[in-house]
Amino acid sequence: MFSNPGVSVMGSFKGHALPGSFFLLGGLWWTAKYSLWHAARRNKNIGSTRLSSRAAQRRLEIVESSLVLFFSFVGMLAEQFLADGPKLRLYDSAENQWKDLMNWQHATMYLFFGLAGCVSLIVHTTEAAPLALDRMMMAIAFFNEGFLFLYHLHGRTMLDVHLHMLLLYAVFGGAVVAFLELFYRGNILLELLRCTLTLLQGSWFWQIGYVLYPPSGAQWDPKDHNNMMFITMCYSWHLAFAMLGVGVLYCLVSCAVRTRLKKTPPVEMGLLKRSDKDPESEDEVV
Amino acid sequence: MFSNPGVSVMGSFKGHALPGSFFLLGGLWWTAKYSLWHAARRNKNIGSTRLSSRAAQRRLEIVESSLVLFFSFVGMLAEQFLADGPKLRLYDSAENQWKDLMNWQHATMYLFFGLAGCVSLIVHTTEAAPLALDRMMMAIAFFNEGFLFLYHLHGRTMLDVHLHMLLLYAVFGGAVVAFLELFYRGNILLELLRCTLTLLQGSWFWQIGYVLYPPSGAQWDPKDHNNMMFITMCYSWHLAFAMLGVGVLYCLVSCAVRTRLKKTPPVEMGLLKRSDKDPESEDEVV
Amino acid sequence: MFSNPGVSVMGSFKGHALPGSFFLLGGLWWTAKYSLWHAARRNKNIGSTRLSSRAAQRRLEIVESSLVLFFSFVGMLAEQFLADGPKLRLYDSAENQWKDLMNWQHATMYLFFGLAGCVSLIVHTTEAAPLALDRMMMAIAFFNEGFLFLYHLHGRTMLDVHLHMLLLYAVFGGAVVAFLELFYRGNILLELLRCTLTLLQGSWFWQIGYVLYPPSGAQWDPKDHNNMMFITMCYSWHLAFAMLGVGVLYCLVSCAVRTRLKKTPPVEMGLLKRSDKDPESEDEVV
Amino acid sequence: MFSNPGVSVMGSFKGHALPGSFFLLGGLWWTAKYSLWHAARRNKNIGSTRLSSRAAQRRLEIVESSLVLFFSFVGMLAEQFLADGPKLRLYDSAENQWKDLMNWQHATMYLFFGLAGCVSLIVHTTEAAPLALDRMMMAIAFFNEGFLFLYHLHGRTMLDVHLHMLLLYAVFGGAVVAFLELFYRGNILLELLRCTLTLLQGSWFWQIGYVLYPPSGAQWDPKDHNNMMFITMCYSWHLAFAMLGVGVLYCLVSCAVRTRLKKTPPVEMGLLKRSDKDPESEDEVV
Repeated sequence: MFSNPGVSVMGSFKGHALPGSFFLLGGLWWTAKYSLWHAARRNKNIGSTRLSSRAAQRRLEIVESSLVLFFSFVGMLAEQFLADGPKLRLYDSAENQWKDLMNWQHATMYLFFGLAGCVSLIVHTTEAAPLALDRMMMAIAFFNEGFLFLYHLHGRTMLDVHLHMLLLYAVFGGAVVAFLELFYRGNILLELLRCTLTLLQGSWFWQIGYVLYPPSGAQWDPKDHNNMMFITMCYSWHLAFAMLGVGVLYCLVSCAVRTRLKKTPPVEMGLLKRSDKDPESEDEVV
Repeated sequence: MFSNPGVSVMGSFKGHALPGSFFLLGGLWWTAKYSLWHAARRNKNIGSTRLSSRAAQRRLEIVESSLVLFFSFVGMLAEQFLADGPKLRLYDSAENQWKDLMNWQHATMYLFFGLAGCVSLIVHTTEAAPLALDRMMMAIAFFNEGFLFLYHLHGRTMLDVHLHMLLLYAVFGGAVVAFLELFYRGNILLELLRCTLTLLQGSWFWQIGYVLYPPSGAQWDPKDHNNMMFITMCYSWHLAFAMLGVGVLYCLVSCAVRTRLKKTPPVEMGLLKRSDKDPESEDEVV
Repeated sequence: MFSNPGVSVMGSFKGHALPGSFFLLGGLWWTAKYSLWHAARRNKNIGSTRLSSRAAQRRLEIVESSLVLFFSFVGMLAEQFLADGPKLRLYDSAENQWKDLMNWQHATMYLFFGLAGCVSLIVHTTEAAPLALDRMMMAIAFFNEGFLFLYHLHGRTMLDVHLHMLLLYAVFGGAVVAFLELFYRGNILLELLRCTLTLLQGSWFWQIGYVLYPPSGAQWDPKDHNNMMFITMCYSWHLAFAMLGVGVLYCLVSCAVRTRLKKTPPVEMGLLKRSDKDPESEDEVV
Repeated sequence: MFSNPGVSVMGSFKGHALPGSFFLLGGLWWTAKYSLWHAARRNKNIGSTRLSSRAAQRRLEIVESSLVLFFSFVGMLAEQFLADGPKLRLYDSAENQWKDLMNWQHATMYLFFGLAGCVSLIVHTTEAAPLALDRMMMAIAFFNEGFLFLYHLHGRTMLDVHLHMLLLYAVFGGAVVAFLELFYRGNILLELLRCTLTLLQGSWFWQIGYVLYPPSGAQWDPKDHNNMMFITMCYSWHLAFAMLGVGVLYCLVSCAVRTRLKKTPPVEMGLLKRSDKDPESEDEVV
């Protein structure tokens, strides 16, 4: 039923912690990946390509896409078949109403991330599709998530609506940055900004869980303006921590790359030279 | 009268299915066209230009523009002169009110698509106007459609408003993408995104028809929140199907082009070489 | 007083027809200017530069800027010193309230157009400022106009608000296009779009005058929804006419340029060749 | 407490005049800096590089960043430990409510400017981070300020809300311009636009202080529409004065540079030539 989100898998602490953890892990993973590639590009002259050759980059992308696809699929199955799931039935003719719409909506969100993973897999294994398509699908998946959340909120308490509205800043922000990457692919700042917003989204999912379903049991007053103001400020702090996290990880990876390059002289550089000018380069914008 | 849209041609199942079919056909047509041209561009070295020489491209554009112009004209006539049309009278002095404003609004939408077709015809038959003008007129036609729909909705039921608001995402999305193509002409991803949004618009028109004028006769409850939530999710599914459709068609066309190129060796390539560097190239942004 | 706009110079038919006429003339003038320059650029090889050499372009800009400056100044004086103007007094201590705020607001709008004219004069007479500054000041002047109108509308009737909201589309649209020209200077499509929106603004001012202060005397019912819908559609028609006007004028100028070029052979071409590569070229984006 | 902003340091005339003065000084400083660098770039051929060599530019940026960092830190301390500050306690378990949320929010705003200063320091002292990162952090700091103000306003009087909403135009405008500079770094017009908006923000803080906490003691009627309209117009005037200020300062700096260059012939030019093509150039966009 509409006013009883508790029926859904998501309407609980775990239901927010789970996607939160995925986005946190994804954000950290992306930060490490883009930092590594950026460091490799900057230190090309001292032979960093052996750390991330085109082939290695491609393999990484394929692994990542497969994982995204796999977990989206698992997520869809969980929403459908766990405990109170609708088990693929959409309409309950007995009660004359839609069946478990919340679960269906979450499954739809997973579906779009699954599609993005699937397309990314195709883009990086074959030559069939233009490279930038993976970013466009990512933008669409984020946009779709935000779109469904936006119309998700009708009839909830003020605090609940406010918490999810703040989430939407991170979601739509991520969608816009991914769309901008269509035109500015390989711009490290846009990539790190997207990582930051993904981390923010992840940690905010945890915060929503803590506020709406407090493990300690002490309920928050959903109508207190002070709570609203605190939540808003709290969002800024999450953003600051996300930036800090991305910054620290970026520095660690940069240092590690430079340290390792200094230790081992680039003996095999000549062999890799050709792949530098590989026409199917990662930076090519189609 | 305002609260009685049933008077208009559009206020019926057929009235939504008709434009829906046009947008569906248009979306499929564009997908095939842009896929073909993209495949031709990518396989230039193996002689694909014979599949889409500049002259052939130009001829295709002229045919397309003429069809758009023709159907817009037919649409305007239909809105004016069929059954309950206003027959070009704008004000009914007997009843002291505007006459069939709905029909006039729909005719105005057709007018702008007609103008876009007309300008596209001029752009592709003469040298008078800059090439990118066709995209700008298309953006204006989409924007005008969305603009009229936006102020169309006053005083309807919640479900009706929601259905048409969702339509506006596709319409304004199409307008923005067409406007971006002013600056990034020939970007296959933007072209396919526009195709996707056009397909989405078309299939959503059908959906609106089904929901507001159900052929089965069972009315939807316009105030049930569950219906609103289902409709929102349904929109995501339409988007997924539109992406699937565009993806499949793109792959089919790409494969067909490559298959045909392999069978017939490019004997006449030398003859076409000059047109490759034709100054009036399709990709030229003026 | 707030609810009595009739006190102001603008709160009358003439008060809307006057700025309307200015914008109409300005829009036509710009269309002719940009069409001429575009035609001159396109036909460079057949000696069109004698029609619009750099020096002539600069002189034209100076004349235009001076006129804008002059009329803005006259407008400010008129708002201040005509009949019911505040005569530079801002606060009426007798009645303990602001004096003729409407006139002050209109004078502020003129002020910004005056500043834009003044800066444009400086840009085109000296080398002191970057060229693109004229477009930025124009964008700011349009934006300021829209901004003041936006907060102008409180407490009026629905029809009045709707009429002015529609005006804002043209005003903010013009501001955005002028801002885009910072980055895409000399793009004929953006220039013509700005001309179209300026014409639309001008003709819509006339329409507002006709609706709110009908010369025939028959008042419009400000609460009738049919009137709102008709007005919206009417706006589309104004846009269509503005586009038509710009299109026709563009074609006329293009034809005139080509005809004149064919008649008189370009004897003096060699003399002008050097100014073609003039470093202070009009297209230079700083 | 929520409806009693008087508890906070900011809820007073001084509390608005202080940040206002910072932004005014910052805006003037930036205007001078960017004008100097632009003049130096334009007059390169007559040896202006001795006025702003790369090393000098870098030193200036380091000093600026340190100052920003220092004052943000002082601001945070002041908000926390002065008179009624929360002294780092967030929750008052005695009264069962959040403690001095206003001060915490202001401290959070300072925190983000502090982060921006810190990152800018790292960017300009080391090679670790891409150059454009300083602009992105600045955009985020402005955005965060606007975001917190946006949710700051609930439950205040109409005049109070209106005054702060107008402030948000300048704040978010500054954020957008700083973000655009990611892609158009070194564009003097965007830089001066940002300076203008910063000056506007500074002077508007003073205006807010004057209106809400009038030193003369005569309270403004917070519900009078005439006051709202006057305030809106007043904002335009502040903008005009900010533009005037930036314009005058830009001209002064330009003239001073040219005068000084004419007096002292560029004897040491040869020595500086190499730094012109310095790979770590300020204009490099990473």
